[in-house]
Amino acid sequence: MNAPSHAARSSAPLYVRIAETFTRHVANGVLRPGDRVPSLRKLSDEQGVSLSTALQAYLWLENRGYLEARPQSGFYIRTPYAKLIPEPQVEIGQSQPTAMGFNAVLEEVIRSANDPAYIPFGAGCASAELFPHRKLNLIMRRILRRKAMHSGYYTFPPGIEAFRRQIARRALAMRCEVSPSDIVVTGGALESIHLSLRAVAKPGDVIAVESPLYFGILNNVASLNMKTIEIPTHPQRGMDLEHLERAIRKHHIKACITVSNGHNPLGYVLPDECKRALVDLTSRANVAVIEDDLYGDLTFDAPRPLTAKSFDRKGLVLLCSSFSKTLSPGYRVGWVLPGRFQAEVERLKLATNVGAPSLPQFVIAEFLESGSYDRHVRRLRATFACQVENVRQAVAKYFPPGTRISRPAGGHMLWIELPPEVDGLKLHRAALFERISISP
Amino acid sequence: MNAPSHAARSSAPLYVRIAETFTRHVANGVLRPGDRVPSLRKLSDEQGVSLSTALQAYLWLENRGYLEARPQSGFYIRTPYAKLIPEPQVEIGQSQPTAMGFNAVLEEVIRSANDPAYIPFGAGCASAELFPHRKLNLIMRRILRRKAMHSGYYTFPPGIEAFRRQIARRALAMRCEVSPSDIVVTGGALESIHLSLRAVAKPGDVIAVESPLYFGILNNVASLNMKTIEIPTHPQRGMDLEHLERAIRKHHIKACITVSNGHNPLGYVLPDECKRALVDLTSRANVAVIEDDLYGDLTFDAPRPLTAKSFDRKGLVLLCSSFSKTLSPGYRVGWVLPGRFQAEVERLKLATNVGAPSLPQFVIAEFLESGSYDRHVRRLRATFACQVENVRQAVAKYFPPGTRISRPAGGHMLWIELPPEVDGLKLHRAALFERISISP
Repeated sequence: MNAPSHAARSSAPLYVRIAETFTRHVANGVLRPGDRVPSLRKLSDEQGVSLSTALQAYLWLENRGYLEARPQSGFYIRTPYAKLIPEPQVEIGQSQPTAMGFNAVLEEVIRSANDPAYIPFGAGCASAELFPHRKLNLIMRRILRRKAMHSGYYTFPPGIEAFRRQIARRALAMRCEVSPSDIVVTGGALESIHLSLRAVAKPGDVIAVESPLYFGILNNVASLNMKTIEIPTHPQRGMDLEHLERAIRKHHIKACITVSNGHNPLGYVLPDECKRALVDLTSRANVAVIEDDLYGDLTFDAPRPLTAKSFDRKGLVLLCSSFSKTLSPGYRVGWVLPGRFQAEVERLKLATNVGAPSLPQFVIAEFLESGSYDRHVRRLRATFACQVENVRQAVAKYFPPGTRISRPAGGHMLWIELPPEVDGLKLHRAALFERISISP
Repeated sequence: MNAPSHAARSSAPLYVRIAETFTRHVANGVLRPGDRVPSLRKLSDEQGVSLSTALQAYLWLENRGYLEARPQSGFYIRTPYAKLIPEPQVEIGQSQPTAMGFNAVLEEVIRSANDPAYIPFGAGCASAELFPHRKLNLIMRRILRRKAMHSGYYTFPPGIEAFRRQIARRALAMRCEVSPSDIVVTGGALESIHLSLRAVAKPGDVIAVESPLYFGILNNVASLNMKTIEIPTHPQRGMDLEHLERAIRKHHIKACITVSNGHNPLGYVLPDECKRALVDLTSRANVAVIEDDLYGDLTFDAPRPLTAKSFDRKGLVLLCSSFSKTLSPGYRVGWVLPGRFQAEVERLKLATNVGAPSLPQFVIAEFLESGSYDRHVRRLRATFACQVENVRQAVAKYFPPGTRISRPAGGHMLWIELPPEVDGLKLHRAALFERISISP
C-alpha cells in the first residue's frame, strides 16, 4: 500500500500534515479498520522525512484513536468509534444576568472526591501517580538544607522572585512579553480568578461566561455576589461572539471569563483567530477578560497554544493559571498576569490571605529552571491524550444511542450529553452507589 | 530584707501572687531601684514555696522590667521606666458606618517588609530565628519519605483530618468542646477572617470593629465592600460594650470583630468577664462574633487564656487562628471554628481557592502531636515578653514627654501614641530613610 502524500499548503507541522492524509483516507474509506499501515521506515522513505517525523505522525494518529500498535506486528487502523459520536450541540443558554446559588450537588461530588473509596470522575483530579513526586521531593529536600529558615518569613505579594522569573520566561512561548514584576503569585488558578474578579468588578456586576463552564468558576462568581450571563459556546470555536457583543451592548458587563486552552468542560483549544477576535471585541468595549489557562500546557498538539493574553494590547486580559494540573494539586500555587489591574490584585491578595506559601514556590522555580518541566509535560500530554481517547471510545461503544461527547484537544475533561430520557441526577446517585463519582 | 508575704485571696497562680507583692512594694516605695532582693533560695525558704516557683516569680518580674539579674551578684530592682509612661487613651472614634478605601501607606510598609535591608517594625513579623525550623524541617523530611505522593492530591475543605484532630485537642484548653469536623483549614488567620466575613455578611453590611484595630483586618473588611463602625476600645478591657449596644440598636450590624487575646495593636488580653459580656450582648442581638485568636498561645502569663468562643452557646462565634505567629509565617496554614456557619465557610473555601496546602498541615499535625509545641511556645512567650518590655523601657527613656505606650499582655505588638506635635506620617518617612519600617 502506498502512503498518501501530504498536502503542502497547510501551515500545520509536517508530521500533522502527514497524519491528516491518513485521517482523510479513513474518512473516505480508502483505509478501513484492521488495515495495516506502512512501517515507520517505509513511511519515512516514501515521504522523504526523518524516522522521528514518521513516528510523530503515527503517535498523533494513535493519540486520536486512528491507529493502534500491535507488538511485533506493526501499526493498524483502528475502528474509529469516535467518528460515530457527535459532539455536543451549542445550546442557547439563559441569556439574562442571573444570580446563582451554590450548587448543592457539588458538595456530594467533593465529599466523594475526598474519599479514596470512590473513583473520582467528578472532580478534575488526575491520578497522583502521574505527577513527578520523586523529583519534586528531591528538590524540596535540597531547599530544606539550603534555605533551612525558609518558613520563617512571610512572602508578601507579588511573591517569590525566582518563581515569577520562571513564569515570565515561559510566557515568552505564548508571545507575552512580561517581566517578573508583572506577575502575582496566588493560591492556585481558582484564587487567581477570584482575585481577578474582585479587581475588575463589584458585587452585583454582570460577568459573561461560556456555557457550559466549569462549575468551580461559576461558584467562584456566585460566591462574590456577582451575576453571570451565559454565552452559548461552540464545542470548537468557543463563545458566540455575536451573542457576546449583543450582551455587552444590552447589559453593563464588567468582565468575560474564558477557558481558552483545553476548555473545561468542552476540551477545545480556541483557535488563534477566535482568541484575537474575542480580545478585539472586549477591548473595544473596555471589558476585562479573565482567561483561565490552567490546561494550556496540556494541549495534545505541540507547540503550546497562544492565549487571549497574547493578543492583548490594552492590559485588559488577566491571565490565570497554576501548576495544579501539571505538577501538584497539593502545593496550592498559582499565578496571575493581571495587566493594568496589577496593583489592585496585589492589594487584594494581601488583604485576603497575606501571601502564598513560600516553599512550593521555591520548589517549582527550581523544577522549571532544571528543564525537567518540559520533558514531564510532554509525557503527561501524551498520557492524557491517550486516556481521553480511550474513554471516548468506551463511551461510543457502551453508552446508549443519542449520546454526544466532546472531542478535547487538551486537558483531561470530557463533556458527555446523554439522550434526553436519561436523568443526570439519577445517574449521579446510581453511580455514587457503585462508588463512582461523576459531575452531573 | 524580708520578702513581702503573698496575698492569699487572689486567684492568680502562686508565683504571680508572690511577684505582685514586689510590684506593690515598688509602687509604694518600700523597694527602690538598685535594691537587692533575696536570693532564689532565700525567697523559696521565706515563702515556703519550691525553688522553681520562686524562679517563676522572678522571671515574671524580670519580664515586666521590675527586676534585673546581675551575673554573679543576684537580682536587683530596676528603674521602673514603664511606670512612668501612661497607656493610650480611649478615643471616641468615628461612630458612623464607613466604607474605607485601601490604605496606601500600607503598601510602603509591605514593600519595606519584603526588603531585607529594612528593620521591619511595621509588619508583624517575628525574627525568623525564633521559629523551630530544625524540628519542622526534620518532620517534613520524614513526611516526604513516608507520604512521597502527598502533593499529588487536592485536599478539599474542611482539610486534613490529622491536623484538625490536633486543633480540636488544643481547643479543650480554652474549654471549647469541638470535634475535628467542626474545623475548617484555611490559608492563615486573615483568610479565616475573610471567609468568616463572607459567611456572615454581604457587601454593604456593617461590621463593628475595635478602634484601634490591626490594619490588615480593616483592609480585609474594606476589600469585601463591607462597612465598618469603630467602637472605642479600652487598652485593657476592650470594646466599650455600651457603645457597641447603642451601635447595634441603631445600625443593622451583621458581625463584630474582636482580637481577644494579645490584641493587635493594643496588646491586652480581654478579661474573661469582658469576653462573656461581649458574647452575651451579641448573642442576644443575634450578631456574629469573628474572633481573632492569632496571639492566644503567645500571652505572657500561663495558663493560656479562654476565648470569646469559650462562652458561645449559640454557635455565633467564629474563632479564627493560625500558626503564622508561633511556627511559620511561610506555611500559610490557619483554621477557623465557624460554629453554625460551618457549611457556608467550607463552601466559600472551596469556591475561593479549592483548599489549603497539604504538606504544612501534615507537618504541623505531627509537631503538635509530638508535644514539642508547648515547650516551644513557652520559650517564645518568654522571649516576646522580654523583648516587648525592653522596647517599652527604651521608648520611656528616649521618646519625648507626652508619649503613651501600650502595656501588652501577649503577642509582640506595641501601640505608641506620640505627642500631638509629632506627625506620624512624617516620622514614617524619616524612619524609612533610615531603613526602619514602622506602621504609622
